[in-house]
Amino acid sequence: MIEHIGRDAFMDDLIGRMRTTMVNHDPELVVARNRDGYHYTKPDLGLVEWMPTMEVGRNVVVKMVGYHPTNPTQRNLPSVLATTSMWDTSTGHLVAICEATVLTALRTGAASALATEVLAPTGPATVGVIGCGAQAVTQVHALSRVRPVERVIAHDAEDEVAATLARRLAFLDIEVETVAHRDLGRLVSESNVLCTCTSVDIGAGPVFPDGVVRDDLHINAVGADFPGKTEIPRDLLERSFVVPDTRSQCIAEGECQQLEPDHIGPELYEVVRDAEEHQRRRSSLTVFDSTGWSVEDQVAIELVLHHGERLGLGTDIEIEGVPPDPYDPYSVLSS
Amino acid sequence: MIEHIGRDAFMDDLIGRMRTTMVNHDPELVVARNRDGYHYTKPDLGLVEWMPTMEVGRNVVVKMVGYHPTNPTQRNLPSVLATTSMWDTSTGHLVAICEATVLTALRTGAASALATEVLAPTGPATVGVIGCGAQAVTQVHALSRVRPVERVIAHDAEDEVAATLARRLAFLDIEVETVAHRDLGRLVSESNVLCTCTSVDIGAGPVFPDGVVRDDLHINAVGADFPGKTEIPRDLLERSFVVPDTRSQCIAEGECQQLEPDHIGPELYEVVRDAEEHQRRRSSLTVFDSTGWSVEDQVAIELVLHHGERLGLGTDIEIEGVPPDPYDPYSVLSS
Repeated sequence: MIEHIGRDAFMDDLIGRMRTTMVNHDPELVVARNRDGYHYTKPDLGLVEWMPTMEVGRNVVVKMVGYHPTNPTQRNLPSVLATTSMWDTSTGHLVAICEATVLTALRTGAASALATEVLAPTGPATVGVIGCGAQAVTQVHALSRVRPVERVIAHDAEDEVAATLARRLAFLDIEVETVAHRDLGRLVSESNVLCTCTSVDIGAGPVFPDGVVRDDLHINAVGADFPGKTEIPRDLLERSFVVPDTRSQCIAEGECQQLEPDHIGPELYEVVRDAEEHQRRRSSLTVFDSTGWSVEDQVAIELVLHHGERLGLGTDIEIEGVPPDPYDPYSVLSS
Repeated sequence: MIEHIGRDAFMDDLIGRMRTTMVNHDPELVVARNRDGYHYTKPDLGLVEWMPTMEVGRNVVVKMVGYHPTNPTQRNLPSVLATTSMWDTSTGHLVAICEATVLTALRTGAASALATEVLAPTGPATVGVIGCGAQAVTQVHALSRVRPVERVIAHDAEDEVAATLARRLAFLDIEVETVAHRDLGRLVSESNVLCTCTSVDIGAGPVFPDGVVRDDLHINAVGADFPGKTEIPRDLLERSFVVPDTRSQCIAEGECQQLEPDHIGPELYEVVRDAEEHQRRRSSLTVFDSTGWSVEDQVAIELVLHHGERLGLGTDIEIEGVPPDPYDPYSVLSS
């Protein structure tokens, strides 16, 4: 589908639909739940979680997410594997099940683009990237759709991951510089927009030292998604206007873990809805605390279903075994 | 699969595997969660819920369940539609997704059979059935695998549903009598084993009046699965030894809603594990409070996967979009 529509057009569509969804978001009508799931340390540190949201009277959307940070190095798999399903609230029918590994990377980029669009300084941007894994690709791509990105300056704890970022971003025609750990201060100080998207260990943050930053730096903090996992220096957060994607989840597992509740700003949908009011913050320090919001996944699967139907992509699969006699489970049998 | 293996053999296998699973159940190693989900009243009363369980170090199993009591009369669909999926805790991969509408009816029957096997009087049985929908078929079938069922005496609030029960149970060669509401007292008093599996409205229970019952009556209370929904008269519960399938969930939405905590007996797995100790209760009043336990769904999907592989049934479906380069979501694209 992305090949058919085109990478840029697909991302633009996702950003546009997410913007519209946020502008119109009504928490009474769209009931997103904090994700919940199983966290474990054997065989390796990881989790399997569910992220449900319901549009009242229409659909329930549930993304199932696995996060296994050793996947890339040990199994040549993305750390995040995900699948989204949609359920009809009139009947209980499974409406669709859709890959969400790529979609999660895309929608996380789109959410950062929306925050960046409102809160980051305008004009040509140097984008700092800390953590050069899968999310880095879609962060930079999405940002490039809302700001003229001239340059990327990037770091990864693993040299070999940093080494391939330029190739993975080649489709964007942006200068990509990767720097060593000792140059993290320069990376941060030269950035107009900074994206942190690491797999830093629980309790091992922040991923860069507090220091000199531009007065108008905007940060998209993408990596924190686990109790105890944070990426941003607390002092810097406390000097910033902090926008959680969803307040309660960010307090549980985002950068907001480090903040007093009264220092936490409005949620992303409010900032996007009241963009004109919040654009004045482009001249000051701002942080988008992105833990991943289930409504973003709803937007993503709806986009896929829309274009899938339009383009004749996707497959009809008979998964449910629906007995022709609703009162007789065995009526599924032919004899 | 059921056609291939045979209805009785399939049910016997399910009962046997569930018995083994319960005998060996270790709550430290199998972490079942109470179900959670969305309850709503528009467009009709219903819910979409998730029922997760994790076998530590192996799999997470999540059944998604829709319960829409108006489905049979308004849409010719079962009130329960369900799908079970399995997730690998090493990688996060979706291992399998499996229909669970028929499976839910079967595993609910199998759980009642296990309770009945330990707690009900031995010898030829008259089975009372209140609520003649889909669950009634698999309740009677499952009970017939652990007791010689001579006769079914049944009632449904809808005459037309009761009218077809004999046809739906014809494969069992059991005498089926259906009775009117005024004969509920006789239905209950003549039963050795009673199954309640109604869609009674919230707050509208019990579904039969307290009255004369056999001293050794065993009840499988299957219908309560929603806060406020109960089927059994409170006095009768208070005179009985009550076995929840899972204590906390039964307190939230089962018959145990009506009981003081200290009146609630051991969980089903303990009764099955310590069957010899509990068989002495065959001469007294016993109630199995069946709200549905996610471990039962794990047993069911594992049975299906086992036989599916053995028999070459099932379909390989590519649902996940796994990028060949784990650090580049766009490596799924061919150009």
